[in-house]
Amino acid sequence: MRLSPRHPRYTSLRVRARLADAHRRGVVVPEGLIAQGRGEAFDYLLGERSSPSARRAERVAAEWLLAARHPVVSVNGNVAALAADEVAGLQRAIPALSVEVNLFHRTGPRARAVARALRVAGVPRVLGVRPTATIPGLPSDRARVDRGGILRADVCLVPLEDGDRAEALRSLGKRVISVDLNPLSRTSRAADLPIVDEVQRALREIARVAIVRRGRATPSRMPPFDRRAALADALATIARELSRAAARGPIGRPRRPASRRRSRGSGGRSRRTP
Amino acid sequence: MRLSPRHPRYTSLRVRARLADAHRRGVVVPEGLIAQGRGEAFDYLLGERSSPSARRAERVAAEWLLAARHPVVSVNGNVAALAADEVAGLQRAIPALSVEVNLFHRTGPRARAVARALRVAGVPRVLGVRPTATIPGLPSDRARVDRGGILRADVCLVPLEDGDRAEALRSLGKRVISVDLNPLSRTSRAADLPIVDEVQRALREIARVAIVRRGRATPSRMPPFDRRAALADALATIARELSRAAARGPIGRPRRPASRRRSRGSGGRSRRTP
Repeated sequence: MRLSPRHPRYTSLRVRARLADAHRRGVVVPEGLIAQGRGEAFDYLLGERSSPSARRAERVAAEWLLAARHPVVSVNGNVAALAADEVAGLQRAIPALSVEVNLFHRTGPRARAVARALRVAGVPRVLGVRPTATIPGLPSDRARVDRGGILRADVCLVPLEDGDRAEALRSLGKRVISVDLNPLSRTSRAADLPIVDEVQRALREIARVAIVRRGRATPSRMPPFDRRAALADALATIARELSRAAARGPIGRPRRPASRRRSRGSGGRSRRTP
Repeated sequence: MRLSPRHPRYTSLRVRARLADAHRRGVVVPEGLIAQGRGEAFDYLLGERSSPSARRAERVAAEWLLAARHPVVSVNGNVAALAADEVAGLQRAIPALSVEVNLFHRTGPRARAVARALRVAGVPRVLGVRPTATIPGLPSDRARVDRGGILRADVCLVPLEDGDRAEALRSLGKRVISVDLNPLSRTSRAADLPIVDEVQRALREIARVAIVRRGRATPSRMPPFDRRAALADALATIARELSRAAARGPIGRPRRPASRRRSRGSGGRSRRTP
Protein backbone atom coordinates (compact mmCIF):
# COMPACT_ATOMS: atom_id res chain seq x y z
CA MET A 1 0.00 0.00 0.00
CA ARG A 2 1.21 3.52 -0.75
CA LEU A 3 1.59 5.71 2.34
CA SER A 4 1.23 9.44 1.88
CA PRO A 5 3.07 11.53 4.50
CA ARG A 6 0.00 13.78 4.42
CA HIS A 7 -2.25 11.01 5.71
CA PRO A 8 -3.66 12.07 9.10
CA ARG A 9 -2.32 8.86 10.67
CA TYR A 10 0.96 8.63 8.72
CA THR A 11 3.22 7.84 11.68
CA SER A 12 1.08 5.06 13.07
CA LEU A 13 0.53 3.64 9.56
CA ARG A 14 4.30 3.49 9.15
CA VAL A 15 4.75 1.69 12.47
CA ARG A 16 1.99 -0.73 11.46
CA ALA A 17 3.70 -1.46 8.15
CA ARG A 18 6.93 -2.11 10.06
CA LEU A 19 5.21 -4.55 12.42
CA ALA A 20 3.47 -6.34 9.55
CA ASP A 21 6.86 -6.72 7.88
CA ALA A 22 8.44 -8.08 11.08
CA HIS A 23 5.54 -10.51 11.23
CA ARG A 24 6.33 -11.77 7.74
CA ARG A 25 9.96 -12.28 8.84
CA GLY A 26 8.80 -14.42 11.77
CA VAL A 27 9.82 -11.94 14.47
CA VAL A 28 6.29 -10.95 15.51
CA VAL A 29 3.42 -13.41 16.11
CA PRO A 30 -0.25 -12.65 15.29
CA GLU A 31 -0.94 -12.09 18.99
CA GLY A 32 1.86 -9.51 19.01
CA LEU A 33 0.12 -7.57 16.25
CA ILE A 34 -3.09 -7.48 18.29
CA ALA A 35 -1.09 -6.30 21.31
CA GLN A 36 0.40 -3.53 19.15
CA GLY A 37 -3.11 -2.33 18.34
CA ARG A 38 -4.02 -2.16 22.02
CA GLY A 39 -0.90 -0.10 22.64
CA GLU A 40 -1.75 2.22 19.75
CA ALA A 41 -5.17 2.91 21.20
CA PHE A 42 -3.75 3.81 24.60
CA ASP A 43 -1.00 5.92 23.05
CA TYR A 44 -3.64 7.79 21.10
CA LEU A 45 -5.56 8.41 24.33
CA LEU A 46 -2.35 9.55 26.04
CA GLY A 47 -1.80 12.16 23.32
CA GLU A 48 1.02 10.19 21.62
CA ARG A 49 3.71 11.84 23.70
CA SER A 50 5.56 11.14 26.94
CA SER A 51 3.77 12.71 29.87
CA PRO A 52 5.80 14.51 32.57
CA SER A 53 4.90 11.61 34.86
CA ALA A 54 6.25 9.05 32.35
CA ARG A 55 9.46 11.05 32.00
CA ARG A 56 9.87 11.04 35.79
CA ALA A 57 9.45 7.25 35.77
CA GLU A 58 12.05 6.97 33.01
CA ARG A 59 14.55 9.02 35.06
CA VAL A 60 14.09 6.75 38.08
CA ALA A 61 14.34 3.67 35.83
CA ALA A 62 17.73 4.90 34.60
CA GLU A 63 18.94 5.22 38.19
CA TRP A 64 17.68 1.77 39.17
CA LEU A 65 19.35 0.18 36.16
CA LEU A 66 22.66 2.00 36.88
CA ALA A 67 22.56 1.01 40.58
CA ALA A 68 21.61 -2.62 39.92
CA ARG A 69 24.11 -5.45 40.30
CA HIS A 70 22.61 -7.51 37.47
CA PRO A 71 20.22 -5.44 35.36
CA VAL A 72 18.55 -7.25 32.46
CA VAL A 73 16.26 -6.06 29.68
CA SER A 74 13.85 -8.71 28.39
CA VAL A 75 13.17 -8.52 24.64
CA ASN A 76 10.22 -10.12 22.88
CA GLY A 77 9.24 -10.03 19.22
CA ASN A 78 7.37 -6.73 19.38
CA VAL A 79 10.23 -5.00 21.22
CA ALA A 80 12.72 -6.29 18.63
CA ALA A 81 10.49 -5.11 15.78
CA LEU A 82 9.73 -1.70 17.25
CA ALA A 83 12.83 -0.79 19.19
CA ALA A 84 15.90 -2.95 18.44
CA ASP A 85 17.96 0.24 17.90
CA GLU A 86 16.74 1.65 21.19
CA VAL A 87 17.66 -1.57 23.05
CA ALA A 88 21.16 -1.35 21.55
CA GLY A 89 21.40 2.32 22.56
CA LEU A 90 20.29 1.50 26.10
CA GLN A 91 22.88 -1.26 26.37
CA ARG A 92 25.62 1.17 25.29
CA ALA A 93 24.40 3.68 27.89
CA ILE A 94 24.33 1.05 30.66
CA PRO A 95 27.21 -1.36 29.95
CA ALA A 96 26.22 -3.72 32.80
CA LEU A 97 22.82 -4.31 31.19
CA SER A 98 22.27 -7.83 29.84
CA VAL A 99 19.94 -8.24 26.88
CA GLU A 100 17.83 -11.42 26.92
CA VAL A 101 15.38 -12.78 24.37
CA ASN A 102 12.22 -13.79 26.20
CA LEU A 103 9.28 -14.98 24.16
CA PHE A 104 5.70 -15.71 25.14
CA HIS A 105 5.25 -17.85 22.02
CA ARG A 106 8.69 -19.45 21.86
CA THR A 107 10.09 -21.44 18.98
CA GLY A 108 13.76 -21.90 18.15
CA PRO A 109 13.57 -20.07 14.81
CA ARG A 110 11.71 -17.17 16.38
CA ALA A 111 14.21 -16.83 19.23
CA ARG A 112 17.00 -16.78 16.65
CA ALA A 113 15.16 -14.21 14.49
CA VAL A 114 14.74 -11.89 17.48
CA ALA A 115 18.41 -12.32 18.46
CA ARG A 116 19.44 -11.60 14.88
CA ALA A 117 17.40 -8.36 14.83
CA LEU A 118 19.15 -7.29 18.05
CA ARG A 119 22.62 -8.13 16.74
CA VAL A 120 21.97 -6.25 13.51
CA ALA A 121 21.00 -3.24 15.63
CA GLY A 122 24.35 -3.47 17.43
CA VAL A 123 23.77 -5.53 20.59
CA PRO A 124 27.05 -7.45 21.03
CA ARG A 125 25.78 -10.31 23.23
CA VAL A 126 22.24 -11.68 23.31
CA LEU A 127 21.14 -14.12 26.04
CA GLY A 128 18.13 -16.41 26.05
CA VAL A 129 18.35 -18.01 22.62
CA ARG A 130 19.07 -21.36 24.27
CA PRO A 131 17.49 -20.99 27.73
CA THR A 132 19.34 -22.64 30.61
CA ALA A 133 16.86 -22.25 33.49
CA THR A 134 13.17 -21.98 34.26
CA ILE A 135 11.36 -19.67 36.63
CA PRO A 136 8.57 -21.07 38.81
CA GLY A 137 4.91 -20.13 38.59
CA LEU A 138 4.51 -20.14 34.81
CA PRO A 139 3.55 -22.75 32.17
CA SER A 140 6.79 -24.45 31.15
CA ASP A 141 7.03 -22.98 27.65
CA ARG A 142 6.87 -19.44 29.00
CA ALA A 143 9.14 -19.98 32.00
CA ARG A 144 12.42 -20.53 30.18
CA VAL A 145 15.15 -18.00 30.87
CA ASP A 146 18.92 -17.67 30.94
CA ARG A 147 20.73 -18.71 34.11
CA GLY A 148 23.16 -15.81 33.76
CA GLY A 149 20.47 -13.33 32.71
CA ILE A 150 16.92 -13.02 34.03
CA LEU A 151 17.37 -15.82 36.60
CA ARG A 152 20.04 -13.93 38.53
CA ALA A 153 18.86 -10.39 37.69
CA ASP A 154 18.03 -8.04 40.55
CA VAL A 155 16.36 -5.45 38.27
CA CYS A 156 14.38 -6.54 35.18
CA LEU A 157 13.25 -4.07 32.55
CA VAL A 158 10.31 -5.74 30.80
CA PRO A 159 8.91 -3.71 27.92
CA LEU A 160 5.56 -4.93 26.49
CA GLU A 161 5.51 -7.84 28.95
CA ASP A 162 2.66 -10.22 29.63
CA GLY A 163 0.93 -9.92 33.02
CA ASP A 164 1.63 -13.47 34.19
CA ARG A 165 5.31 -13.12 33.61
CA ALA A 166 5.59 -9.70 35.20
CA GLU A 167 3.92 -11.15 38.29
CA ALA A 168 6.18 -14.22 38.26
CA LEU A 169 9.32 -12.06 38.13
CA ARG A 170 8.05 -9.94 40.97
CA SER A 171 7.29 -13.08 42.98
CA LEU A 172 10.95 -14.00 42.61
CA GLY A 173 11.84 -10.83 44.46
CA LYS A 174 13.18 -8.98 41.45
CA ARG A 175 12.48 -5.31 40.93
CA VAL A 176 10.33 -5.08 37.82
CA ILE A 177 10.35 -2.02 35.55
CA SER A 178 7.58 -2.30 32.95
CA VAL A 179 6.95 -0.29 29.79
CA ASP A 180 3.27 -0.62 28.92
CA LEU A 181 0.86 1.97 27.49
CA ASN A 182 -2.10 0.56 29.40
CA PRO A 183 -2.02 1.86 32.98
CA LEU A 184 -4.71 -0.66 33.93
CA SER A 185 -2.93 -3.75 32.60
CA ARG A 186 -1.82 -6.50 34.96
CA THR A 187 1.76 -5.79 33.90
CA SER A 188 1.55 -2.12 34.87
CA ARG A 189 -0.14 -3.08 38.12
CA ALA A 190 2.43 -5.75 38.98
CA ALA A 191 5.50 -3.62 38.26
CA ASP A 192 7.55 -1.86 40.95
CA LEU A 193 8.17 0.90 38.43
CA PRO A 194 5.50 1.05 35.76
CA ILE A 195 6.43 3.29 32.83
CA VAL A 196 3.27 4.22 30.92
CA ASP A 197 4.80 5.28 27.64
CA GLU A 198 5.56 4.09 24.13
CA VAL A 199 8.54 1.73 24.04
CA GLN A 200 10.81 3.71 21.68
CA ARG A 201 10.25 6.95 23.55
CA ALA A 202 10.73 5.23 26.92
CA LEU A 203 13.98 3.42 26.06
CA ARG A 204 15.47 6.53 24.43
CA GLU A 205 14.74 8.64 27.48
CA ILE A 206 16.15 6.05 29.91
CA ALA A 207 19.33 5.86 27.80
CA ARG A 208 19.61 9.65 27.60
CA VAL A 209 19.31 10.03 31.38
CA ALA A 210 21.70 7.13 32.01
CA ILE A 211 24.40 8.82 29.88
CA VAL A 212 23.98 12.07 31.83
CA ARG A 213 24.01 10.26 35.20
CA ARG A 214 27.03 8.11 34.37
CA GLY A 215 29.25 11.19 34.48
CA ARG A 216 28.45 11.47 38.18
CA ALA A 217 29.31 9.01 40.94
CA THR A 218 27.62 5.63 40.47
CA PRO A 219 24.40 5.69 42.49
CA SER A 220 24.72 3.29 45.40
CA ARG A 221 21.02 2.99 46.13
CA MET A 222 17.82 2.98 44.14
CA PRO A 223 15.68 6.06 44.69
CA PRO A 224 12.08 5.48 45.78
CA PHE A 225 9.27 5.47 43.22
CA ASP A 226 5.59 6.12 43.87
CA ARG A 227 3.96 3.58 41.54
CA ARG A 228 0.41 4.41 42.60
CA ALA A 229 0.90 8.07 41.77
CA ALA A 230 2.40 7.17 38.39
CA LEU A 231 -0.58 5.00 37.43
CA ALA A 232 -3.07 7.57 38.71
CA ASP A 233 -1.27 10.25 36.65
CA ALA A 234 -1.61 8.14 33.51
CA LEU A 235 -5.35 7.67 34.07
CA ALA A 236 -5.72 11.39 34.68
CA THR A 237 -3.81 12.13 31.45
CA ILE A 238 -6.18 9.91 29.46
CA ALA A 239 -9.23 11.54 31.06
CA ARG A 240 -7.81 14.98 30.26
CA GLU A 241 -7.04 14.06 26.63
CA LEU A 242 -10.57 12.72 26.23
CA SER A 243 -12.20 15.88 27.47
CA ARG A 244 -9.82 17.96 25.37
CA ALA A 245 -10.69 15.90 22.28
CA ALA A 246 -14.39 16.27 23.02
CA ALA A 247 -14.00 20.02 23.52
CA ARG A 248 -12.02 20.75 20.35
CA GLY A 249 -14.79 19.04 18.45
CA PRO A 250 -13.43 15.83 16.99
CA ILE A 251 -17.06 14.89 17.13
CA GLY A 252 -17.57 17.32 14.31
CA ARG A 253 -17.25 15.70 10.92
CA PRO A 254 -14.00 15.84 9.04
CA ARG A 255 -14.21 18.41 6.24
CA ARG A 256 -15.54 16.96 3.06
CA PRO A 257 -13.17 17.64 0.12
CA ALA A 258 -14.75 20.17 -2.29
CA SER A 259 -14.20 17.92 -5.30
CA ARG A 260 -16.40 15.25 -3.84
CA ARG A 261 -19.35 17.37 -2.84
CA ARG A 262 -21.65 16.26 -5.60
CA SER A 263 -23.50 13.04 -5.05
CA ARG A 264 -22.58 10.58 -7.75
CA GLY A 265 -24.07 7.35 -6.48
CA SER A 266 -27.23 6.07 -8.15
CA GLY A 267 -28.78 5.64 -4.72
CA GLY A 268 -27.75 9.18 -3.79
CA ARG A 269 -29.76 11.27 -1.42
CA SER A 270 -28.91 13.93 1.09
CA ARG A 271 -26.45 12.62 3.64
CA ARG A 272 -27.70 14.97 6.27
CA THR A 273 -29.27 13.23 9.22
CA PRO A 274 -32.92 14.35 9.27
CA MET B 1 -1.27 -22.18 23.74
CA ARG B 2 -3.54 -23.60 26.42
CA LEU B 3 -6.29 -21.23 27.50
CA SER B 4 -7.66 -21.60 31.00
CA PRO B 5 -11.27 -20.39 31.41
CA ARG B 6 -10.12 -19.00 34.74
CA HIS B 7 -7.66 -16.63 33.11
CA PRO B 8 -8.73 -13.04 33.90
CA ARG B 9 -8.83 -12.20 30.17
CA TYR B 10 -10.22 -15.54 28.92
CA THR B 11 -12.85 -14.09 26.56
CA SER B 12 -10.51 -11.69 24.83
CA LEU B 13 -7.80 -14.37 24.64
CA ARG B 14 -10.30 -16.62 22.86
CA VAL B 15 -11.25 -13.91 20.39
CA ARG B 16 -7.54 -13.27 19.80
CA ALA B 17 -6.93 -16.97 19.10
CA ARG B 18 -9.83 -16.91 16.64
CA LEU B 19 -8.42 -13.89 14.79
CA ALA B 20 -4.94 -15.40 14.70
CA ASP B 21 -6.48 -18.54 13.19
CA ALA B 22 -8.40 -16.51 10.59
CA HIS B 23 -5.11 -14.82 9.79
CA ARG B 24 -3.46 -18.18 9.12
CA ARG B 25 -6.36 -19.04 6.78
CA GLY B 26 -5.77 -15.83 4.81
CA VAL B 27 -9.00 -14.13 5.89
CA VAL B 28 -7.39 -11.49 8.11
CA VAL B 29 -4.31 -9.43 7.18
CA PRO B 30 -1.64 -8.32 9.68
CA GLU B 31 -3.08 -4.80 9.65
CA GLY B 32 -6.44 -6.31 10.60
CA LEU B 33 -4.90 -7.90 13.68
CA ILE B 34 -3.51 -4.52 14.75
CA ALA B 35 -6.95 -2.98 14.20
CA GLN B 36 -8.46 -5.71 16.38
CA GLY B 37 -6.12 -4.70 19.19
CA ARG B 38 -7.22 -1.07 18.94
CA GLY B 39 -10.82 -2.20 19.16
CA GLU B 40 -10.07 -4.38 22.18
CA ALA B 41 -8.57 -1.44 24.03
CA PHE B 42 -11.61 0.75 23.40
CA ASP B 43 -14.00 -2.08 24.30
CA TYR B 44 -12.10 -2.51 27.55
CA LEU B 45 -12.49 1.21 28.24
CA LEU B 46 -16.19 1.01 27.40
CA GLY B 47 -16.66 -1.73 29.99
CA GLU B 48 -16.96 -4.55 27.40
CA ARG B 49 -20.73 -4.17 27.14
CA SER B 50 -23.20 -2.26 24.97
CA SER B 51 -24.00 1.12 26.48
CA PRO B 52 -27.61 2.34 26.52
CA SER B 53 -26.55 4.89 23.91
CA ALA B 54 -25.11 2.15 21.66
CA ARG B 55 -28.33 0.15 21.98
CA ARG B 56 -30.34 3.21 20.94
CA ALA B 57 -28.09 3.59 17.89
CA GLU B 58 -28.60 -0.10 17.06
CA ARG B 59 -32.39 0.31 17.23
CA VAL B 60 -32.30 3.26 14.83
CA ALA B 61 -29.90 1.33 12.55
CA ALA B 62 -32.46 -1.50 12.34
CA GLU B 63 -35.14 0.99 11.27
CA TRP B 64 -32.91 2.62 8.66
CA LEU B 65 -31.97 -0.76 7.18
CA LEU B 66 -35.63 -1.87 7.09
CA ALA B 67 -36.75 1.40 5.47
CA ALA B 68 -33.91 1.47 2.91
CA ARG B 69 -34.50 0.63 -0.74
CA HIS B 70 -31.07 -0.93 -1.21
CA PRO B 71 -29.39 -1.64 2.12
CA VAL B 72 -25.94 -3.22 1.97
CA VAL B 73 -23.60 -4.51 4.66
CA SER B 74 -19.92 -4.30 3.75
CA VAL B 75 -17.82 -7.21 5.05
CA ASN B 76 -14.04 -7.16 5.40
CA GLY B 77 -11.69 -9.84 6.74
CA ASN B 78 -12.05 -8.89 10.40
CA VAL B 79 -15.85 -8.82 10.18
CA ALA B 80 -15.86 -12.25 8.51
CA ALA B 81 -13.53 -13.65 11.18
CA LEU B 82 -15.35 -12.14 14.14
CA ALA B 83 -18.98 -12.09 13.08
CA ALA B 84 -19.81 -14.19 9.98
CA ASP B 85 -22.68 -15.83 11.92
CA GLU B 86 -24.00 -12.43 12.96
CA VAL B 87 -23.89 -11.15 9.35
CA ALA B 88 -25.89 -14.20 8.28
CA GLY B 89 -28.39 -13.62 11.10
CA LEU B 90 -28.76 -9.98 10.13
CA GLN B 91 -29.38 -10.92 6.51
CA ARG B 92 -32.13 -13.34 7.60
CA ALA B 93 -33.70 -10.61 9.74
CA ILE B 94 -33.55 -8.04 6.90
CA PRO B 95 -34.13 -10.00 3.66
CA ALA B 96 -33.52 -6.93 1.45
CA LEU B 97 -29.99 -6.60 2.83
CA SER B 98 -27.20 -7.31 0.35
CA VAL B 99 -23.93 -8.69 1.71
CA GLU B 100 -20.80 -7.46 -0.07
CA VAL B 101 -17.16 -8.37 0.43
CA ASN B 102 -15.16 -5.15 0.61
CA LEU B 103 -11.46 -5.37 1.38
CA PHE B 104 -8.91 -2.68 2.14
CA HIS B 105 -6.07 -5.05 1.20
CA ARG B 106 -7.73 -6.86 -1.71
CA THR B 107 -6.44 -9.97 -3.42
CA GLY B 108 -8.53 -12.50 -5.30
CA PRO B 109 -7.79 -15.38 -2.90
CA ARG B 110 -8.61 -13.22 0.09
CA ALA B 111 -11.92 -12.04 -1.39
CA ARG B 112 -12.82 -15.67 -2.03
CA ALA B 113 -11.78 -16.73 1.50
CA VAL B 114 -14.00 -14.03 3.02
CA ALA B 115 -16.92 -15.01 0.76
CA ARG B 116 -16.41 -18.66 1.71
CA ALA B 117 -16.55 -17.82 5.43
CA LEU B 118 -19.84 -15.96 4.84
CA ARG B 119 -21.37 -18.80 2.83
CA VAL B 120 -20.36 -21.35 5.46
CA ALA B 121 -22.13 -19.17 8.02
CA GLY B 122 -25.30 -19.27 5.90
CA VAL B 123 -25.26 -16.17 3.70
CA PRO B 124 -26.89 -17.37 0.45
CA ARG B 125 -25.51 -14.71 -1.92
CA VAL B 126 -22.27 -12.79 -1.51
CA LEU B 127 -21.46 -9.77 -3.71
CA GLY B 128 -18.10 -8.15 -4.32
CA VAL B 129 -15.88 -11.14 -5.03
CA ARG B 130 -15.47 -9.92 -8.62
CA PRO B 131 -16.06 -6.15 -8.33
CA THR B 132 -17.90 -4.52 -11.25
CA ALA B 133 -17.58 -0.82 -10.42
CA THR B 134 -15.35 1.70 -8.67
CA ILE B 135 -16.26 4.55 -6.39
CA PRO B 136 -14.50 7.90 -6.80
CA GLY B 137 -12.18 9.51 -4.27
CA LEU B 138 -10.18 6.44 -3.26
CA PRO B 139 -6.97 4.77 -4.46
CA SER B 140 -8.02 2.34 -7.19
CA ASP B 141 -7.35 -0.88 -5.27
CA ARG B 142 -9.62 0.22 -2.44
CA ALA B 143 -12.40 1.67 -4.61
CA ARG B 144 -13.70 -1.52 -6.18
CA VAL B 145 -17.31 -2.41 -5.41
CA ASP B 146 -20.27 -4.27 -6.86
CA ARG B 147 -22.51 -2.39 -9.28
CA GLY B 148 -25.62 -4.04 -7.81
CA GLY B 149 -24.39 -3.69 -4.23
CA ILE B 150 -22.54 -0.79 -2.62
CA LEU B 151 -22.63 1.34 -5.80
CA ARG B 152 -26.41 1.59 -5.81
CA ALA B 153 -26.97 1.30 -2.05
CA ASP B 154 -28.83 4.07 -0.26
CA VAL B 155 -27.88 2.82 3.22
CA CYS B 156 -24.48 1.21 3.88
CA LEU B 157 -23.70 -0.61 7.10
CA VAL B 158 -19.91 -0.57 7.38
CA PRO B 159 -18.60 -2.45 10.42
CA LEU B 160 -14.89 -1.94 11.20
CA GLU B 161 -14.47 0.33 8.18
CA ASP B 162 -11.49 2.47 7.30
CA GLY B 163 -11.92 6.25 7.59
CA ASP B 164 -11.16 7.07 3.95
CA ARG B 165 -13.79 4.69 2.69
CA ALA B 166 -16.44 5.77 5.17
CA GLU B 167 -15.87 9.35 3.99
CA ALA B 168 -15.98 8.34 0.31
CA LEU B 169 -19.31 6.54 0.77
CA ARG B 170 -20.72 9.54 2.56
CA SER B 171 -19.50 11.82 -0.25
CA LEU B 172 -21.55 9.68 -2.63
CA GLY B 173 -24.66 10.68 -0.73
CA LYS B 174 -25.20 7.34 0.94
CA ARG B 175 -26.30 7.07 4.52
CA VAL B 176 -23.43 5.45 6.39
CA ILE B 177 -23.96 3.35 9.53
CA SER B 178 -20.61 2.52 11.12
CA VAL B 179 -19.73 0.01 13.84
CA ASP B 180 -16.47 1.13 15.44
CA LEU B 181 -15.37 0.99 19.07
CA ASN B 182 -13.35 4.20 18.79
CA PRO B 183 -15.69 7.19 19.08
CA LEU B 184 -12.86 9.48 17.93
CA SER B 185 -12.01 7.56 14.75
CA ARG B 186 -12.51 9.16 11.36
CA THR B 187 -15.01 6.41 10.56
CA SER B 188 -17.15 7.20 13.61
CA ARG B 189 -16.90 10.91 12.83
CA ALA B 190 -17.83 10.46 9.17
CA ALA B 191 -20.84 8.21 9.76
CA ASP B 192 -24.44 9.41 9.75
CA LEU B 193 -25.15 6.81 12.39
CA PRO B 194 -22.04 5.84 14.35
CA ILE B 195 -22.54 2.74 16.50
CA VAL B 196 -19.83 2.64 19.16
CA ASP B 197 -20.01 -1.01 20.11
CA GLU B 198 -18.36 -4.38 19.52
CA VAL B 199 -19.31 -5.85 16.13
CA GLN B 200 -20.91 -9.11 17.33
CA ARG B 201 -23.00 -7.37 19.96
CA ALA B 202 -24.00 -4.62 17.51
CA LEU B 203 -25.08 -6.91 14.67
CA ARG B 204 -27.00 -9.21 17.03
CA GLU B 205 -28.90 -6.31 18.50
CA ILE B 206 -29.73 -4.80 15.10
CA ALA B 207 -31.02 -8.22 13.95
CA ARG B 208 -33.05 -8.70 17.12
CA VAL B 209 -34.72 -5.30 16.76
CA ALA B 210 -35.32 -5.84 13.02
CA ILE B 211 -37.18 -9.09 13.73
CA VAL B 212 -39.39 -7.35 16.29
CA ARG B 213 -40.02 -4.36 13.98
CA ARG B 214 -40.76 -6.50 10.93
CA GLY B 215 -43.98 -7.68 12.55
CA ARG B 216 -45.22 -4.09 12.36
CA ALA B 217 -45.86 -2.05 9.21
CA THR B 218 -42.68 -1.48 7.19
CA PRO B 219 -41.30 1.90 8.26
CA SER B 220 -41.64 4.35 5.38
CA ARG B 221 -39.13 6.86 6.65
CA MET B 222 -35.89 6.79 8.52
CA PRO B 223 -36.10 8.20 12.04
CA PRO B 224 -33.65 10.98 12.94
CA PHE B 225 -30.43 10.20 14.77
CA ASP B 226 -28.35 12.57 16.87
CA ARG B 227 -24.84 11.48 15.94
CA ARG B 228 -23.11 14.16 18.02
CA ALA B 229 -24.94 13.05 21.13
CA ALA B 230 -24.07 9.39 20.43
CA LEU B 231 -20.35 10.16 20.14
CA ALA B 232 -20.40 12.41 23.20
CA ASP B 233 -22.14 9.62 25.14
CA ALA B 234 -19.41 7.16 24.17
CA LEU B 235 -16.67 9.54 25.34
CA ALA B 236 -18.57 10.09 28.59
CA THR B 237 -18.87 6.31 29.07
CA ILE B 238 -15.11 5.89 28.68
CA ALA B 239 -14.41 8.73 31.10
CA ARG B 240 -16.83 7.17 33.61
CA GLU B 241 -15.30 3.70 33.27
CA LEU B 242 -11.84 5.16 33.81
CA SER B 243 -12.79 6.93 37.01
CA ARG B 244 -14.63 3.82 38.17
CA ALA B 245 -11.55 1.69 37.48
CA ALA B 246 -9.36 4.18 39.32
CA ALA B 247 -11.78 4.27 42.27
CA ARG B 248 -12.13 0.50 42.70
CA GLY B 249 -8.38 0.36 42.95
CA PRO B 250 -7.09 -1.47 39.89
CA ILE B 251 -4.01 0.53 40.67
CA GLY B 252 -3.56 -1.74 43.65
CA ARG B 253 -1.44 -4.75 42.90
CA PRO B 254 -3.02 -8.03 41.94
CA ARG B 255 -2.86 -10.44 44.90
CA ARG B 256 0.26 -12.50 44.90
CA PRO B 257 -0.54 -16.25 45.07
CA ALA B 258 0.47 -17.68 48.46
CA SER B 259 2.49 -20.47 46.87
CA ARG B 260 4.80 -18.00 45.21
CA ARG B 261 5.52 -15.78 48.16
CA ARG B 262 9.04 -16.98 48.82
CA SER B 263 11.79 -15.43 46.80
CA ARG B 264 13.58 -18.06 44.79
CA GLY B 265 15.73 -16.02 42.45
CA SER B 266 19.43 -15.79 43.12
CA GLY B 267 19.18 -12.03 42.74
CA GLY B 268 16.26 -11.93 45.17
CA ARG B 269 15.62 -8.98 47.39
CA SER B 270 12.53 -7.33 48.75
CA ARG B 271 10.16 -6.32 45.96
CA ARG B 272 8.83 -3.46 47.96
CA THR B 273 9.55 -0.06 46.48
CA PRO B 274 11.69 1.76 49.02
